Amino acid sequence: MRKIILFIADSLDGYIARKNGKVDWLFTEGEYGFSKFYNTIDTVVMGRKTYDISLELEGKEPFKGKQVFVFTKSKEAESHGRIKFVITEIVEFTKELLKKDGKNIWLVGGGEIVKVFFESNLIDEIVLSIHPIILGDGIPLFLNNSHQTNLELRVHKNFDNGLVQLTYDVVK
Amino acid sequence: MRKIILFIADSLDGYIARKNGKVDWLFTEGEYGFSKFYNTIDTVVMGRKTYDISLELEGKEPFKGKQVFVFTKSKEAESHGRIKFVITEIVEFTKELLKKDGKNIWLVGGGEIVKVFFESNLIDEIVLSIHPIILGDGIPLFLNNSHQTNLELRVHKNFDNGLVQLTYDVVK
Repeated sequence: MRKIILFIADSLDGYIARKNGKVDWLFTEGEYGFSKFYNTIDTVVMGRKTYDISLELEGKEPFKGKQVFVFTKSKEAESHGRIKFVITEIVEFTKELLKKDGKNIWLVGGGEIVKVFFESNLIDEIVLSIHPIILGDGIPLFLNNSHQTNLELRVHKNFDNGLVQLTYDVVK
Repeated sequence: MRKIILFIADSLDGYIARKNGKVDWLFTEGEYGFSKFYNTIDTVVMGRKTYDISLELEGKEPFKGKQVFVFTKSKEAESHGRIKFVITEIVEFTKELLKKDGKNIWLVGGGEIVKVFFESNLIDEIVLSIHPIILGDGIPLFLNNSHQTNLELRVHKNFDNGLVQLTYDVVK
């Protein structure tokens, strides 16, 4: 059964980006297990704002080699190649995706999509890279939601620069 | 020089209590270094709401053996014994406290007081016990504030039940 994995970085106060979308505070000198993780997935899903940021960071062909689904409310977004814009209902679409054969699915973000996934109990695993900084303000990873999620810590790693990477299984 | 230490527990999504103030989700079967920490301090500071919760949890004489300062806006709060209610300006009061001889000072919480302390750059150390749960909603540890705080990870511990305890020095 393929799993949905939220692999994401945040500040100690739970922000994934500054208010202006900047992620200049993220460590970039290492890869913190990213390549290994990237090999375990074949599909990425995310919200439109997160996709737009990835275009800025990675250029026109982000998420190399993967099937990309971008949830959006805009009917004008045009799918091309392996990048598909999805305007149907997020939960239903994702449940259909899970029925198909394939490797794991990376939930990239952002907060609004993550909230929908948590509330629908769709996340199987969280890999959170907590950076040693309190931004004070920014775009939050966890939005208020109505659903409590119990976790089991499976792996914890720390790096010389102070990054702490925690891997949790969601208790279902 | 005495230090101000924020020693506190939260959920992975950054809540220190449920919306109704309940902390039933906190691990209580271990002490996670608390006694050792408690011996390094002689003073505790906190906001009024946090004090009221501590009365519920510990009874009428919370924070045994320590000098307790409770920041409040109410002029009716009556100091008694080692419990003093402070209605003067938080930052000035704390700076005076730091000039006096003594052991370290425990900043107990909650979010509103923590925000004032971060914005005034008064916190020297953070010991955060992250519980393996996403509450979804509750009373946040980190309120929006205008101040970025850079941290250095000094100690990281994890426990069999999934608690992760991170100790950071604030870079000043």
